[in-house]
Amino acid sequence: MRRQHHHLTSYAALWGYLLLMLFALGTARADIPQALYDNLGLDRNADPKALFEALEQRYYDPEQGAGKGKFGELWEPIPFSKYLNPHTFYEPPQTLQMTATRQQCIDCHSGVTPGWVHSWGNSVHANLEQIRQLPGDDPRAYKKDIITEVEDNLRSMGKLAADMTLAEVSCIDCHIDIGAQQGDHAKELRMPDGAVCGTCHLQQWAERESERDTLDWPHDQWPAGRPSHALDYRANVETAIWAGMPQREIAEGCTFCHNNQTKCDTCHTRHEFSTVEARKPEACATCHNGVDHNEYENFLLSKHGTIYQTRGDSWDWNVRLADAVEQGQQAPTCQLCHMEYQGEFSHNVVRKVRWGFNPMPAIADNLDHPWFEDRQAAWQETCSTCHSPRFAQAYLEFIDNGVKDGLAVEQDAK
Amino acid sequence: MRRQHHHLTSYAALWGYLLLMLFALGTARADIPQALYDNLGLDRNADPKALFEALEQRYYDPEQGAGKGKFGELWEPIPFSKYLNPHTFYEPPQTLQMTATRQQCIDCHSGVTPGWVHSWGNSVHANLEQIRQLPGDDPRAYKKDIITEVEDNLRSMGKLAADMTLAEVSCIDCHIDIGAQQGDHAKELRMPDGAVCGTCHLQQWAERESERDTLDWPHDQWPAGRPSHALDYRANVETAIWAGMPQREIAEGCTFCHNNQTKCDTCHTRHEFSTVEARKPEACATCHNGVDHNEYENFLLSKHGTIYQTRGDSWDWNVRLADAVEQGQQAPTCQLCHMEYQGEFSHNVVRKVRWGFNPMPAIADNLDHPWFEDRQAAWQETCSTCHSPRFAQAYLEFIDNGVKDGLAVEQDAK
Amino acid sequence: MRRQHHHLTSYAALWGYLLLMLFALGTARADIPQALYDNLGLDRNADPKALFEALEQRYYDPEQGAGKGKFGELWEPIPFSKYLNPHTFYEPPQTLQMTATRQQCIDCHSGVTPGWVHSWGNSVHANLEQIRQLPGDDPRAYKKDIITEVEDNLRSMGKLAADMTLAEVSCIDCHIDIGAQQGDHAKELRMPDGAVCGTCHLQQWAERESERDTLDWPHDQWPAGRPSHALDYRANVETAIWAGMPQREIAEGCTFCHNNQTKCDTCHTRHEFSTVEARKPEACATCHNGVDHNEYENFLLSKHGTIYQTRGDSWDWNVRLADAVEQGQQAPTCQLCHMEYQGEFSHNVVRKVRWGFNPMPAIADNLDHPWFEDRQAAWQETCSTCHSPRFAQAYLEFIDNGVKDGLAVEQDAK
Repeated sequence: MRRQHHHLTSYAALWGYLLLMLFALGTARADIPQALYDNLGLDRNADPKALFEALEQRYYDPEQGAGKGKFGELWEPIPFSKYLNPHTFYEPPQTLQMTATRQQCIDCHSGVTPGWVHSWGNSVHANLEQIRQLPGDDPRAYKKDIITEVEDNLRSMGKLAADMTLAEVSCIDCHIDIGAQQGDHAKELRMPDGAVCGTCHLQQWAERESERDTLDWPHDQWPAGRPSHALDYRANVETAIWAGMPQREIAEGCTFCHNNQTKCDTCHTRHEFSTVEARKPEACATCHNGVDHNEYENFLLSKHGTIYQTRGDSWDWNVRLADAVEQGQQAPTCQLCHMEYQGEFSHNVVRKVRWGFNPMPAIADNLDHPWFEDRQAAWQETCSTCHSPRFAQAYLEFIDNGVKDGLAVEQDAK
Repeated sequence: MRRQHHHLTSYAALWGYLLLMLFALGTARADIPQALYDNLGLDRNADPKALFEALEQRYYDPEQGAGKGKFGELWEPIPFSKYLNPHTFYEPPQTLQMTATRQQCIDCHSGVTPGWVHSWGNSVHANLEQIRQLPGDDPRAYKKDIITEVEDNLRSMGKLAADMTLAEVSCIDCHIDIGAQQGDHAKELRMPDGAVCGTCHLQQWAERESERDTLDWPHDQWPAGRPSHALDYRANVETAIWAGMPQREIAEGCTFCHNNQTKCDTCHTRHEFSTVEARKPEACATCHNGVDHNEYENFLLSKHGTIYQTRGDSWDWNVRLADAVEQGQQAPTCQLCHMEYQGEFSHNVVRKVRWGFNPMPAIADNLDHPWFEDRQAAWQETCSTCHSPRFAQAYLEFIDNGVKDGLAVEQDAK
Repeated sequence: MRRQHHHLTSYAALWGYLLLMLFALGTARADIPQALYDNLGLDRNADPKALFEALEQRYYDPEQGAGKGKFGELWEPIPFSKYLNPHTFYEPPQTLQMTATRQQCIDCHSGVTPGWVHSWGNSVHANLEQIRQLPGDDPRAYKKDIITEVEDNLRSMGKLAADMTLAEVSCIDCHIDIGAQQGDHAKELRMPDGAVCGTCHLQQWAERESERDTLDWPHDQWPAGRPSHALDYRANVETAIWAGMPQREIAEGCTFCHNNQTKCDTCHTRHEFSTVEARKPEACATCHNGVDHNEYENFLLSKHGTIYQTRGDSWDWNVRLADAVEQGQQAPTCQLCHMEYQGEFSHNVVRKVRWGFNPMPAIADNLDHPWFEDRQAAWQETCSTCHSPRFAQAYLEFIDNGVKDGLAVEQDAK
């Protein structure tokens, strides 16, 4: 964590820092949890191709959460389902029988669906060269490294020649195939899923997929890997009442949130895929609101939320999350605390989960188990960015006891 | 619609475009629905004076929704009613017996109600010359044409000499009479209603009034012209329980929303009358919220609303609604979709209404009627600004079926 | 009130103005209510030291609301209580046994709790010289006078030499003692309460404390001085059900709002203590929301709130509240109306309270008592900043009668 840099005053720390950098150079994936590698049977030094293929195999495995789930014979998709789980249900429309070139996609859709094209025009995807030209002190300069990393991934997977750089990410790259020059609109068109995004953004996808691996509840309080974004579609379809209800549109209403597993655009909406958008609390609010889990409302009405709402317009939302506090963000967002774990930031947002959404005796009675204690210690470290450790400890104990009190009332009522 | 311009590549289209321009030059009111002209017995080429007078006659006709309504003998206004329905209830205060000049209004109210005067000072009304001097590439330059149109209207009605231009719109123009140089505060003072605003802003008022004409439900699912802004006061006062309840302050609480018919400042609040304000979703939220019709909450928590909230500060809110998507607005607001109909934007916001606020069997059972199908097709075109037509179709079918499912539960419960 | 300046056109008014200025020079506390001086047995010309000591004595008096309250034997604090009522419960942590210098506080906490230090770095406290150098036309230039006033207070209390100016307000000034050069972390560390903030910000603290004095209900509708920020902790702990309930974490949940009495950071969150933040409605929302008193929701959904939300980004939030309307704030915030009383602005926000949170017959039946009528007149004056007095009168009567109607229903149901 950034603040630990202040302690690097001894030779020992300096050596540790150098070792860390060497390690980082070796894989550039220091913050993908070891449990993911273990579960996939991979070495940490696996190249991008090997990591991607192992992730993809698990991602598409019906035994591990892909597809319609164990109650799949009970329900049929509605027409909209193809957009919620494209890998399972999407078929290209048959209304347009043509082969389109890279440029034709843009030209035609500038006329028929201009909003898409304007959004993409504002994206990094459409402006890679602009990013490459940013001066080093621009807050978005870190994206140069991401472009380089994407190119390395593509070269490892044989999708980019060793002497080539990416010129753009255009319609056809995501909707036909990366690097394709043309595609058959009626046969080859695809809606991107996590694996499509993860081909380029392998680090981020692997982090997200690692939620399956780190939520290894010690007493099976929840099914393995849940509740998480990585398996939220499975959670939906493997609920008997969901699969069995005859009103399919009502059922698919649940899927409007339970589709993080199957896609990436619930946080990074198409087609700008703005990091600024994804970094603000509203990006989480679409799902994390309401009577069953009113996280967003609680945030907005907290002092954290007050500062966000009253002062957030003076923060630079283009700085990297890891640099945000140092660069002037004076209060946490959802992202700042939930994407952080032991000083590192990643797309695994469940590494400090303890209560899940559902306080239950099997959790309340085991908070002194090391699995829970380690996570509580990680929270305390997170809060200590801005609060004293004692304050954090008192606060965490406070809310634990409050939840236990509430749970006792609920249990009494049963 | 703007995106259709991309198809103007043939001679046929070019001729069509020229014809359209000629037509537009002839009336400048291409987007006032024909049904309004038909119902008012007017030719589309009617001059502004004729159109205004026909609109005004209907607007003030008790048989067509003006005044206290058919239960008018059951209730009396409270003191505040004069501000909710000024044409029916407003009387000038008798506390100030004086004749005030144009300048005296401003001078005295700068002292006694300074907030008003400061707001007006920020308005276009107080800065017509500033608008006239805007360079052509300023996003507000389109307002020059509106000033010209207003002047044409006033000349047609004999309120502006042929060789004069408007210098300003000041207190006295709206609160005594357009162009007046002085007025009797105790006798002539008025609170503007739709007709007062519509004298200058005839196009916009006629569009709004056309809601009476286009909501011609095929099986009388709702009373003609309702639910709409144009008849929302009538909806209030012609509800028996409203008119008959003895607690008049509670009843007039309803009128805090049900006063769009009688005034224009529910969307364009006085005295800046900001188009920026009126273009943002919060302008709609005062009424369109809560348990009975939570449109605002649904918007904010949708991805449309997320993008508005996280990225809207980077949009230019001064651009015309018709240009917004092209100019960088990456997600819809209420206004972008509900003011649009077949590619044109207007103040008739109910042209695509199908379910109204109140799903009922008489709607659910008739969605295959051409009236409903045409409106669904119009929605599909609207959504296609940013989504594929197939996506739009699947989504619209999705929500139709979901509403039918919910309605069936409600009907079973009865 | 600012708008009255427009009438200063006669000699009489000019003389009055000069007299007012002389009076202001004499005490600089023209807007501390006389009732506070009366209750504290002070002359209005009391020097800062005398005022502070009288306020502090009352503030810490258990008979007048300090400490655990009359049910104190029924309950024990939880670890977090020390942060909610530091004067009563805070003890320094024993984990760090060291004496820290002024600079060491900053250096060490830059490493262990960097968020704090960054926030403080953005504060006026850390940038006094920057404020002193502001040109006179900077909207924050008024803060120069506040710095001068703070220095006068400190000199009066013997905490600043006559020939010294304040260089900074650093960790140690608030957390050890004002002006201290070092302190024992395990013995001398303190959490600031109102008296600590009030040592420098005496005017603001005295205004806030005066809520105890001005809420002198004529028929004891509420306990003296309540409901108010100044006694909200007492309201909490002297409620029997609060003190007696065994679930102390649930009980202390109430204290998350009921701690304005004991601290100042519920509105001015640490460690930037931003006036911009404290001036926005969200600063009030943390407490003033929800089913029992949904003031914030009512504001946001009103037209006042609409204008704030749609146009507030164009307002200069650094201008003094008293100048806000003149400087372009076109709609009220909570602060603009509730901190104002008869044209003056202060931290006593209850001077126009009439209904409190709890409509009751003893209020409804006495609205014609002078105590209530004077407050209604003060509201009418407030509203007249932007509305005609007749409009304000009609509106206030409207809501009074509506509340009475609702109260009658409630009473019938009992």
